[in-house]
Amino acid sequence: MKQTNSGIYAGRGERALLVEIRKRAARFSGGGLRLGIGDDCALLAPRPGEEVAVTTDLSIAGHHFRLDWHPPEAVGHRALARGLSDLAAMGARPVAAFLSLGLPRELTIASGRRRSWVQRFLDGLLALAEAHNTPLAGGDLAESPIVVADIVLVGAVPRGRALLRSGARPGDLLYATGALGGAAAGLARLAELAQAQPGPNPPIIPNKLKAMLTPHLYPQPRIRQGLWLQRRGMASAALDLSDGLSTDLAHLCEESGVAAEVDAALLPIHPAATLPQALHGGEDYELLFTAPVSARLPRSIAGVPVTRIGRILKARAGQPAITLLTPQGPQPLIPHGWEHFC
Amino acid sequence: MKQTNSGIYAGRGERALLVEIRKRAARFSGGGLRLGIGDDCALLAPRPGEEVAVTTDLSIAGHHFRLDWHPPEAVGHRALARGLSDLAAMGARPVAAFLSLGLPRELTIASGRRRSWVQRFLDGLLALAEAHNTPLAGGDLAESPIVVADIVLVGAVPRGRALLRSGARPGDLLYATGALGGAAAGLARLAELAQAQPGPNPPIIPNKLKAMLTPHLYPQPRIRQGLWLQRRGMASAALDLSDGLSTDLAHLCEESGVAAEVDAALLPIHPAATLPQALHGGEDYELLFTAPVSARLPRSIAGVPVTRIGRILKARAGQPAITLLTPQGPQPLIPHGWEHFC
Repeated sequence: MKQTNSGIYAGRGERALLVEIRKRAARFSGGGLRLGIGDDCALLAPRPGEEVAVTTDLSIAGHHFRLDWHPPEAVGHRALARGLSDLAAMGARPVAAFLSLGLPRELTIASGRRRSWVQRFLDGLLALAEAHNTPLAGGDLAESPIVVADIVLVGAVPRGRALLRSGARPGDLLYATGALGGAAAGLARLAELAQAQPGPNPPIIPNKLKAMLTPHLYPQPRIRQGLWLQRRGMASAALDLSDGLSTDLAHLCEESGVAAEVDAALLPIHPAATLPQALHGGEDYELLFTAPVSARLPRSIAGVPVTRIGRILKARAGQPAITLLTPQGPQPLIPHGWEHFC
Repeated sequence: MKQTNSGIYAGRGERALLVEIRKRAARFSGGGLRLGIGDDCALLAPRPGEEVAVTTDLSIAGHHFRLDWHPPEAVGHRALARGLSDLAAMGARPVAAFLSLGLPRELTIASGRRRSWVQRFLDGLLALAEAHNTPLAGGDLAESPIVVADIVLVGAVPRGRALLRSGARPGDLLYATGALGGAAAGLARLAELAQAQPGPNPPIIPNKLKAMLTPHLYPQPRIRQGLWLQRRGMASAALDLSDGLSTDLAHLCEESGVAAEVDAALLPIHPAATLPQALHGGEDYELLFTAPVSARLPRSIAGVPVTRIGRILKARAGQPAITLLTPQGPQPLIPHGWEHFC
């Protein structure tokens, strides 16, 4: 992150934002960060024999979040969680995060004791970064009529050991971590709250609803679980459930050239969610992975349950890529990804 | 780059955009790219003993470019040039580029033989990427009410050899590559053309003006020159001239804890530019660097002139950080960076 030629630096308050980010980011630095904010580039030092994993995730107000629905801390947390979850899906350890942030000037202004929107956004982002030992190593800032946040995650993984989407083979079993549909159920509840409390600011969330909204507002990327699978060479393929099981499993099948069967009775549906939310709801950020029948997977990895939900089949022309086994018999599972707010 | 949960994938035309980008990006792949578009992350393999340099640059319509001024090819070229120039300033070789792109749906629609805005944007971006052997390895796509393009560049540099902003020492000489002020002069001319041809599309540029607008529309990042300086260990500090000489030199002085003196008579002012444009105009993307007096620098590096423009001094409390030597005597050079379009 450097000073750039963008309007947000015109005022002293905005210059202060860069200084604040640099100061807060410098409070901790992970293993691989050689040079952080302040030069033309950050410098990272992967360990000998490691490859570098890179992912970018763009979050745009009105599409990936809403200023009148989501607390700023949750917007920051969710933006970073998307990128960390991509690293988890590769079995990579996080090395550094970068943030390119465009936002309206008024969101940078604190008033009295009230922290500004962007300060609270950073609170959420940096808390999750610290929990995963991921330094914020750079980025860019600009004034923008709408909030846009592009998160870049750089990770490292021993050469040839990354978990790919393309490695699933017919006969492999299909697994998911955690519970499915909780984020979609939480979003539906958040939408109701926001409609009951209309206005420019996020609704007040009653204490009794906080736990239910957590899977949507503060999803936990499965970094430890991805690393566990990678280190033991257990998974033949993996990705993260960002778009919903039906859509993400279709991606896995496409990249691996296989078909799949999901048993509805086995799905670890979140207690607050419906079957359609578990099948199609996005943003759970659980891992979906395959492993040979011979792999002996534990019931949980680092405290998160692991559930077998189906198996990988040969792809056959004219057959659906994914079949859902239900009490009423098998039926095609059509990818029906997450539609977001607009 | 992967399919993500964003509205732009709702339609077939938009899905086609991802397929097109993946296909075009796959046409060439640079040395260090192990896995490109299609998985949760890209995988890069730096060489043994190399550090990884990362930079992100956010370009937002109305701030960094205007749809009614800039041809789409130039928007794509300039977005990538900003990032490549950051790598050049570190003396890093490019390994891969990533593009997070948000844009209105109508800009993805081609009509008959007319290529869509985004296709032409990619034409400009990919041509420059290929010229610098930089594969497009991933990114993200989303629908957005305004065009936002975040470019991420990943490069590699032998451990401990990167050119930093912080290495300038009193007594070092100060150098610039190429000519200064050409981009600001070109922008001023482009603004005149646009005002003479008002409308939603960029103005038609007469052939006789094309050369004059090139430094603004198609700046050339100085990758070869940065690599040359790094490999020979010639430069004590370096950065790229993105915000203008007065502002960027102030950054160099701040990070190195030094002051500087610039001789106006030595400045390689672009033939079309004024002295103020050379001093304060941004986006020339030349390199500004320092070297000890003992370093024997050639007059040009890889075909681009190198000019000594001043020297580094001790910082003294109460003295201006930068002094400009003029025929009227020395005067303080106040950082007066680039103000952009709004």
